[in-house]
Amino acid sequence: MSGRIRLGMVGGGTGAFIGAVHRLAARMDDRYDFVAGALSSTPERARESGAELGLDPARSYDDFTAMAKREARLKDGIQAVAIVTPNHMHAPAAREFLKRGIHVICDKPLTATLPEAKKLARAVEDSDALFILTHNYTAYPLVRQARAMVADGTLGELRVVQVEYPQDWLTTPLESEGQKQAEWRNDPAKTGAGNCVGDIGTHAHNLAEFITGQRVESLAADMHTFVPGRLLDDNIHVMLRFDGGARGMLWTSQVAPGNENGLRIRVYGENGGLEWAQENPNVLTHSPYGEPPRTITRAGPGFTQTTGTRVPPGHPEGYLEGFGNLYSEAADLIEAHARGETPETLLPGIEQGLRGMRFVDACVRSNKRNAAWVTL
Amino acid sequence: MSGRIRLGMVGGGTGAFIGAVHRLAARMDDRYDFVAGALSSTPERARESGAELGLDPARSYDDFTAMAKREARLKDGIQAVAIVTPNHMHAPAAREFLKRGIHVICDKPLTATLPEAKKLARAVEDSDALFILTHNYTAYPLVRQARAMVADGTLGELRVVQVEYPQDWLTTPLESEGQKQAEWRNDPAKTGAGNCVGDIGTHAHNLAEFITGQRVESLAADMHTFVPGRLLDDNIHVMLRFDGGARGMLWTSQVAPGNENGLRIRVYGENGGLEWAQENPNVLTHSPYGEPPRTITRAGPGFTQTTGTRVPPGHPEGYLEGFGNLYSEAADLIEAHARGETPETLLPGIEQGLRGMRFVDACVRSNKRNAAWVTL
Amino acid sequence: MSGRIRLGMVGGGTGAFIGAVHRLAARMDDRYDFVAGALSSTPERARESGAELGLDPARSYDDFTAMAKREARLKDGIQAVAIVTPNHMHAPAAREFLKRGIHVICDKPLTATLPEAKKLARAVEDSDALFILTHNYTAYPLVRQARAMVADGTLGELRVVQVEYPQDWLTTPLESEGQKQAEWRNDPAKTGAGNCVGDIGTHAHNLAEFITGQRVESLAADMHTFVPGRLLDDNIHVMLRFDGGARGMLWTSQVAPGNENGLRIRVYGENGGLEWAQENPNVLTHSPYGEPPRTITRAGPGFTQTTGTRVPPGHPEGYLEGFGNLYSEAADLIEAHARGETPETLLPGIEQGLRGMRFVDACVRSNKRNAAWVTL
Amino acid sequence: MSGRIRLGMVGGGTGAFIGAVHRLAARMDDRYDFVAGALSSTPERARESGAELGLDPARSYDDFTAMAKREARLKDGIQAVAIVTPNHMHAPAAREFLKRGIHVICDKPLTATLPEAKKLARAVEDSDALFILTHNYTAYPLVRQARAMVADGTLGELRVVQVEYPQDWLTTPLESEGQKQAEWRNDPAKTGAGNCVGDIGTHAHNLAEFITGQRVESLAADMHTFVPGRLLDDNIHVMLRFDGGARGMLWTSQVAPGNENGLRIRVYGENGGLEWAQENPNVLTHSPYGEPPRTITRAGPGFTQTTGTRVPPGHPEGYLEGFGNLYSEAADLIEAHARGETPETLLPGIEQGLRGMRFVDACVRSNKRNAAWVTL
Repeated sequence: MSGRIRLGMVGGGTGAFIGAVHRLAARMDDRYDFVAGALSSTPERARESGAELGLDPARSYDDFTAMAKREARLKDGIQAVAIVTPNHMHAPAAREFLKRGIHVICDKPLTATLPEAKKLARAVEDSDALFILTHNYTAYPLVRQARAMVADGTLGELRVVQVEYPQDWLTTPLESEGQKQAEWRNDPAKTGAGNCVGDIGTHAHNLAEFITGQRVESLAADMHTFVPGRLLDDNIHVMLRFDGGARGMLWTSQVAPGNENGLRIRVYGENGGLEWAQENPNVLTHSPYGEPPRTITRAGPGFTQTTGTRVPPGHPEGYLEGFGNLYSEAADLIEAHARGETPETLLPGIEQGLRGMRFVDACVRSNKRNAAWVTL
Repeated sequence: MSGRIRLGMVGGGTGAFIGAVHRLAARMDDRYDFVAGALSSTPERARESGAELGLDPARSYDDFTAMAKREARLKDGIQAVAIVTPNHMHAPAAREFLKRGIHVICDKPLTATLPEAKKLARAVEDSDALFILTHNYTAYPLVRQARAMVADGTLGELRVVQVEYPQDWLTTPLESEGQKQAEWRNDPAKTGAGNCVGDIGTHAHNLAEFITGQRVESLAADMHTFVPGRLLDDNIHVMLRFDGGARGMLWTSQVAPGNENGLRIRVYGENGGLEWAQENPNVLTHSPYGEPPRTITRAGPGFTQTTGTRVPPGHPEGYLEGFGNLYSEAADLIEAHARGETPETLLPGIEQGLRGMRFVDACVRSNKRNAAWVTL
Repeated sequence: MSGRIRLGMVGGGTGAFIGAVHRLAARMDDRYDFVAGALSSTPERARESGAELGLDPARSYDDFTAMAKREARLKDGIQAVAIVTPNHMHAPAAREFLKRGIHVICDKPLTATLPEAKKLARAVEDSDALFILTHNYTAYPLVRQARAMVADGTLGELRVVQVEYPQDWLTTPLESEGQKQAEWRNDPAKTGAGNCVGDIGTHAHNLAEFITGQRVESLAADMHTFVPGRLLDDNIHVMLRFDGGARGMLWTSQVAPGNENGLRIRVYGENGGLEWAQENPNVLTHSPYGEPPRTITRAGPGFTQTTGTRVPPGHPEGYLEGFGNLYSEAADLIEAHARGETPETLLPGIEQGLRGMRFVDACVRSNKRNAAWVTL
Repeated sequence: MSGRIRLGMVGGGTGAFIGAVHRLAARMDDRYDFVAGALSSTPERARESGAELGLDPARSYDDFTAMAKREARLKDGIQAVAIVTPNHMHAPAAREFLKRGIHVICDKPLTATLPEAKKLARAVEDSDALFILTHNYTAYPLVRQARAMVADGTLGELRVVQVEYPQDWLTTPLESEGQKQAEWRNDPAKTGAGNCVGDIGTHAHNLAEFITGQRVESLAADMHTFVPGRLLDDNIHVMLRFDGGARGMLWTSQVAPGNENGLRIRVYGENGGLEWAQENPNVLTHSPYGEPPRTITRAGPGFTQTTGTRVPPGHPEGYLEGFGNLYSEAADLIEAHARGETPETLLPGIEQGLRGMRFVDACVRSNKRNAAWVTL
């Protein structure tokens, strides 16, 4: 159908969790046509996945370089590509598309290592194409609401930030039991120097910076590997100092039983506090100092966002809708780009990706020095 | 793309809440192509909406009869149609498609009146096409889980059912203030003899029967119209007797401030209780008698459903995903139908639609007799 | 110590739950000395209980008539007596003290039958002494707050009242297993014509009238006995019509697994709603229509009560503190009475006791007529 | 009445919050008679308070030394004394009673400084009398339950401890506005080197050690003073390493709007997690790994404690009841002491007091070294 953006995908063959999420997010508001892919690094699996997903066989590629080359030449070639491989392949894949002017929507964390990230940043700078990083939690409507309330001074000067992201899926040595995602995440060559810190720590860090509008200036990190035989961290405690004067704590864990996907943030300023939790994301608690706490619901009274929500209050939207917001705002940007416009955006991009990698790097450096303060 | 079901829509022009929901639900799992519509009863608005939604102008119709006739003749005509008009138009529209063998996915309540409903039921019987009613709340994963736990005897013999569906959007006389949806819902000619009872009471009734596997045998209803000048009910209290021996209460309201879309059900049997609330739908509380209550999460420990969920536990799914489940299961049914198969399904159909209309009719009859018991 | 009120007790020997609660409540704010008792209808147990509780043996009586006679003659005889026997003994015991000018603090429900209640009411009228009924839930600070907010018009004209009181302790036939309290509660001679309705239904009814300031004018009740062999009701569904125009529903149950002491009330008016639940009683939710719901905490912002709370917000008070409020306010009344004053009070008395018995009686009458509406 | 323990009090004149709490806690289970006091350091206020509280004027003292001397000589002198002065007076007062064999129940933190604490510890060692510190939160029934579940291996080896204690009462410079408690708490001479860390940080630290059965071995602390003009800390972030291998984070704040008294702890081990929050203390969440989380209620299914609870599940107990548990267990100890017995106890004493002061001292030392790790 005319008007939709032609989208390709690298990685995300059938069975991969996050690839399916990206495709669904792209469909959410009907802004994309998914038309090409290099869906696996194993050619046979790539082709099978393409067939299962209904791709034209001529546009189901064995490798991303071939895909980038050919799609760039096609009259109706893809305009954007989603990159959903393990971390270490993000940069090589992204560069192939960026240099051919194809917009990139890339999974987080940006790369496996900070040097790779810097190299990718240069590639983004050198390209006219857009680069969008799927820090999806920043696109939940009430996260946007929280950011707006901080920005408009509702809380006054910020003092304290408490952010946490506990999970429990790695409580046991799942990586030794053939679970594919656990396997590559525990492989430093594919994941980088930190697993828990990179996979979910970067989300927590990004969310804190997004809502507060302040940047983590320095941190002190104590990283742990609790499960015997594991190579990378599965729990991390961090103290934060923000450039705007706020002080914070950040906890992420993959070994905290009872926590499924417990991203939660609390922000306190001289005039009030805000609290939001991802698992029940349609609610934001605002506590003006000296007044009763107020429950702001998505699209309900007190909600002032004008985008990013599809159904009336009380009809819960969640993870997929938030992810869909990223894709739909990316579509807006891509269309504006085609018109030669560069509108302001709240979408995370290369800068947020680099900051995330600096966060991981700083945690690892601090941890090696017994949790000494290091700057980002 | 091959493999998708060709879908049309009657009603649901741009600006209509529920039409957009149906289209998004149809896209959710990529099982449908939306290709034709008679999107408004006003021809001009119908055409504008079709254009905005990217329909081929030749398949954007002024009225549903023309659409049914032409699509039935097309080689690639629609296989299914979604009907999302005001209640009184459900039956006339549905019949046009049913008699031409086009499957119908129809919004609830079934019709505006019980006689219409019976007439439509005969049309369904006479047709080879499928008829599916979008009682969407029965497709939430944890509602399915609750039903399964009742069915497998986890609660023992059922005793008490408490179901409620409070909202607050009609606390003031919104229908006098130009709000379009409030207007037609307050018009007995379009809505039928009950507004609150038909719009959301039927959901509560349907959910109770779905989870318990019992049918409401008789009821006593006290209906109220609190807002001055309003023509139809905006609050209703009902006592229920189920055919399996359970006893219950049902409350729905559109004038309960602080309740956005508060559908909630609690079921108690001799061995335990279950509780589920639509506004935080990823959680089901199971209280085995004499043991600590357990929190079952969507896709988490204790969850035994194998379909209807897309992302891991802790990544909240909500209203649109539940609605999407209906559409995707309808796609399964439609494909099976094409193969000549008639698999079992949990999807609501004409029977549930008729029961809903009998529920509305019984409430109105009981209320006229000062809440005397009447049978359904 | 000088200044404390001398208190006696009828019933409540060691092992009895509610007797210990009354004594603790009397101690809560140090307003009473517990100095005499007829603690059991079994003389030996009465004496043993008195000894265990440290009573002067001369003031540990075998029966309440002897106690009333002697204490009335003593220079330092009791000024007030707490009556905590099974229901059928409330009235005979109370009359002995009332006619001797000793104030009575009586457990609820008032009596086992309505005629007894009326007879007791006449005794109260003929006596100069005070009569206080321990509908303790009306003395929680946030229940008082709710009442005040209704009274001052915060909600506007009331429309809907939803009150419920589910428990689960009689899910199995506990009365056949030697549990003493279950035994007498299942004995119509001791309990009256309703068990669940009398024991906890009266609390729910009383709470609804207390907060709304309206009186139940008529009701339709469906009573159930789910556990085989049980003589009295263990679940009851009631529809309510209030004299001020509000409409309501009331549910009480002793067979709802997972509910320990689930008294909860929701009140909705044209301008807002209120919600309070006994199990987490330090929180009251106020939902002004069109604004975010607000969480009012005991002693926190928005709390306007000046009595009935002992510790700062965030330090939870509960059941015993609420009960203690009744006793401390009774002490205020008793001291005022001694000064010849009759201050206004929110304490429940004979009128509330009578209304409770009329409620029970109406439920039983309505149920016998298949839940027809009956007036109280 | 015979059998009760004769109790005196130092500090806690009328108007002081914590003195009234101690007296109520002592009355809770009727184990004490409050008979003597040096209720203020201002003689006139001491006498007025004694009169208001009904003390015999001969036993309402101007200073605690005179009180200790005279009460020790009286035939019916006090057996125990509660010390509820500002921190810096705890030690001098306690020593006067300890050296005369009078048991001491002392408010926390133990002292204003670590040297004072050590000196007091020697005085306790030299005395035959008991010394009990009111770390009251360890006496909540479900805190005891949590400790028991850790001790019996329910969670397996512990990994992560998250404890926090946010409040908001010092969000503004209350100490400059004449609030008495805020005044002395902000005075280093009376409070010691840390305010937030000493007042509530010690509670959080104590709770973590109590439940885990592990001791904080080292910590890294970042302390903050957000309110301009304030002399002492009002927020503190700490990373913890426990001697049993667990790692943790501790946050306390007095400037976090919306938090009234938000003590909360989460403990995770290889087999499961536990969560408890003081503001709704009748609930403990237990998440066995791989099973649905279970809600254990005070006195409900799964609760295995045999003491410390007075009313059935669903009848909330709170702060005062928990405090009362400390007093009642202290009464048990005092009676056992009189019989020459020294039973095991969970009551906090001088060791916990010393550990608390070492915690404060370590935080201050670490903070001075830019949050370097220091040992306790």
